[in-house]
Amino acid sequence: MTTTHVVLSAADLPDHWYNIVPDLPASPPPALHPQTLEPLRPEDLSGLLPQGVIEQEFSEERWIEIPDRVRELYQIWRPSPLHRATRLERALDTPARIYFKYEGVSPAGSHKPNTAIAQAYYAAEDGVRRLTSETGAGQWGSALSFAGSLFGLDVTVYMVRSSFQQKPYRRILMETWGAEVHPSPSARTDAGRAVLAQTPDSPGSIGIAISEAVQDALSREDTRFALGSISNNVLIHQSVIGLEAKKQLEIADDYPDVVVGCVGGGSGYAGLSYPFLYDTLTGKRSGTRFVAVEPDACPSLTRGTYAYDYPDTASLGPVLPMFTLGHNFMPAPIHAGGLRHHGSSPTMGTLVQHGHVQARSVSQTDIFSAAVLFARNEGFVMAPESAHGVRGAIDEALAAREAGEARAILVHVSGHGNFDMAAYDSYLAHTLTDHEPDQADIERALGELPSAKIPV
Amino acid sequence: MTTTHVVLSAADLPDHWYNIVPDLPASPPPALHPQTLEPLRPEDLSGLLPQGVIEQEFSEERWIEIPDRVRELYQIWRPSPLHRATRLERALDTPARIYFKYEGVSPAGSHKPNTAIAQAYYAAEDGVRRLTSETGAGQWGSALSFAGSLFGLDVTVYMVRSSFQQKPYRRILMETWGAEVHPSPSARTDAGRAVLAQTPDSPGSIGIAISEAVQDALSREDTRFALGSISNNVLIHQSVIGLEAKKQLEIADDYPDVVVGCVGGGSGYAGLSYPFLYDTLTGKRSGTRFVAVEPDACPSLTRGTYAYDYPDTASLGPVLPMFTLGHNFMPAPIHAGGLRHHGSSPTMGTLVQHGHVQARSVSQTDIFSAAVLFARNEGFVMAPESAHGVRGAIDEALAAREAGEARAILVHVSGHGNFDMAAYDSYLAHTLTDHEPDQADIERALGELPSAKIPV
Repeated sequence: MTTTHVVLSAADLPDHWYNIVPDLPASPPPALHPQTLEPLRPEDLSGLLPQGVIEQEFSEERWIEIPDRVRELYQIWRPSPLHRATRLERALDTPARIYFKYEGVSPAGSHKPNTAIAQAYYAAEDGVRRLTSETGAGQWGSALSFAGSLFGLDVTVYMVRSSFQQKPYRRILMETWGAEVHPSPSARTDAGRAVLAQTPDSPGSIGIAISEAVQDALSREDTRFALGSISNNVLIHQSVIGLEAKKQLEIADDYPDVVVGCVGGGSGYAGLSYPFLYDTLTGKRSGTRFVAVEPDACPSLTRGTYAYDYPDTASLGPVLPMFTLGHNFMPAPIHAGGLRHHGSSPTMGTLVQHGHVQARSVSQTDIFSAAVLFARNEGFVMAPESAHGVRGAIDEALAAREAGEARAILVHVSGHGNFDMAAYDSYLAHTLTDHEPDQADIERALGELPSAKIPV
Repeated sequence: MTTTHVVLSAADLPDHWYNIVPDLPASPPPALHPQTLEPLRPEDLSGLLPQGVIEQEFSEERWIEIPDRVRELYQIWRPSPLHRATRLERALDTPARIYFKYEGVSPAGSHKPNTAIAQAYYAAEDGVRRLTSETGAGQWGSALSFAGSLFGLDVTVYMVRSSFQQKPYRRILMETWGAEVHPSPSARTDAGRAVLAQTPDSPGSIGIAISEAVQDALSREDTRFALGSISNNVLIHQSVIGLEAKKQLEIADDYPDVVVGCVGGGSGYAGLSYPFLYDTLTGKRSGTRFVAVEPDACPSLTRGTYAYDYPDTASLGPVLPMFTLGHNFMPAPIHAGGLRHHGSSPTMGTLVQHGHVQARSVSQTDIFSAAVLFARNEGFVMAPESAHGVRGAIDEALAAREAGEARAILVHVSGHGNFDMAAYDSYLAHTLTDHEPDQADIERALGELPSAKIPV
């Protein structure tokens, strides 16, 4: 029997997270205060985020100890499996070895609990009683609801109203873990009421939902806000993915020539790739390529600009240096809701800018053809977000066939697709459409960037 | 860090399945031919089932080698995790140690692929090109669609029409793996057409769907039928669950005092418990209790009769000795669709009859309260079927508290609840109802048992 499923024991769980900041080719420019546009100080975030999270957000330590309690809770689904996709390799008739790290085994169904549990832990340590957050399609809201339940924290999620109405199952999942879920815009916050006054039937947006969650958190002493991607602290927590994958590939006696994954805010792909980029950046290894795959419909890395921008439409969050399409850019309603963000994380931006990470974009039809081919060979039916990475891995495997090279490809399958069946139905019925933004729309949104005084 | 997640490596996958038949306290009476009511011979099943499956159905070998190809495919999700539910233990303030074996990590989301892959393997070995089956809520149909895709087999699933209409996501999942799914009754078979002629808007039933799948299989040389529970061969394949759990508990240096799980047809609970019952039946261990939990709404083990009966409403399947409510018994439409069968497997019947397995029944409200308590402490949101077992485990843990005894409890969590969110919504909204059949309805259905000439 060939071993294709590399399993680690609980004792193999990493005891430190990896922080890429000290190893970057250049320090990213500092985050700026959203009102003053001056460099952000840790104390500017108190009241908004738990203290432990703020410390990590500004940390330049390479290795950050994972608290015992967090490691214990990671065991609910970690270490997650690493599989060799031997049947997919045969179907592609490629000499490449394709490995996938599967995060869909978590209770919330994606990699998001890796940071949700850490953020809930630091909130509980801080004496916080309640967390607020936003969610679009619901992956992040689910993860935070799950994590909150483990620490006895109340969780309030502002869910984009159109998703709230169209995807009741994600809402019910959050409620099963005890969370309170409100359609956003809501009448609960100034930000929500302002939108409703102008547009009573507003379908909502991630930007509005973030504003509501932030205002809610700032209005109560016992409450903090939790963010699901973009921030340094989130990317640090996600490094458990790649640290585990490294150990698993050691057991398989292999090392990736290519590390590929989907990018929205970038936390999942950073989680997989940064521990391997560590080897490259510190000169321990060379020759590894890093490929970030984003949707044609929301191409921040391939068609955006590296600039200072707000992470949210309502301009409430810290101004960050990143590849962005402009915080007022409105991506088409593709099924990969988790990749519909106008920008991606600052460190990912630095790595793309310096050529360490290559970016490409793919169409919605192409990602579903990859997901279905994968499902019929490797079993797992993945989230549309994850399918961007797998499309990239398949294309890399086909390129390896062309080149006649037995390359090792590592890809991140960030979540299952059990709540995305309507999208698969649309693909199988040939009613799926592709989307690419007009250049004029991108330029219009890029014209509304904040006038930061610091160059990026 | 306390280890609560016991992981096995692929090398620990069992290499043999366990067959309890030679270790039973008494041989179950033989299955009978549905028309002649004479003892069934292996050749009566050729044309309906693959040869390898027929051999296992009649096998009296204790250990049956798992083909290498099946073990390789099991690695897609096996070995499945065993967890210690430490947070649930604390919430219950019990001295008991609760372990759960989690099968929701399979691509189809339950334990069903353990047998689907084996049956698809034997079909492919036989040169079969196509498999047919029935499905109610969709767990079994999903598992067979997944398994078929791995062997390049066409799969046709007859899905109970009411489920087909109410649960499109399970249908889409099957189609994603390439299966053809038809609402049943359909116009594709005599059985379907006969029902439609009488009742054009029939919502269908498992019995009708089985009849359609059987007729379809018998009508084509290249096609066989696959069954998801009840049969000996299915129970044999499911033994991987318990065999793994034994190894995992050895690592945890523990042995269960109680083994508990949900029972519909009984294959999931048999899979977990039979490898432990082996120890009891062969005198290697004593003092272990085995508790089978069924729904109040379909109480075959607690209110049924041990007798010969058909496994399907249409009286096409082999007549089996089992605890039954009568093949015309119509259970209330509870959310645990997988437990809505009028009878359970013959070997389980023998074990209950001889007192080796205790049966109890629980209400729908009580199983959801258990599932929500579990989700908020252990993370996983389980299928309503699985929640019957977990209700049983919680009640055992509370009894251990009463007794002041640190008992070890092992329970089977057979699947995730991602496709059961509407049921959770109903529970959380307090609109869930409980169901118990009238004694008169049970007696009426038991009055229609076949008049077998052989006593049970």
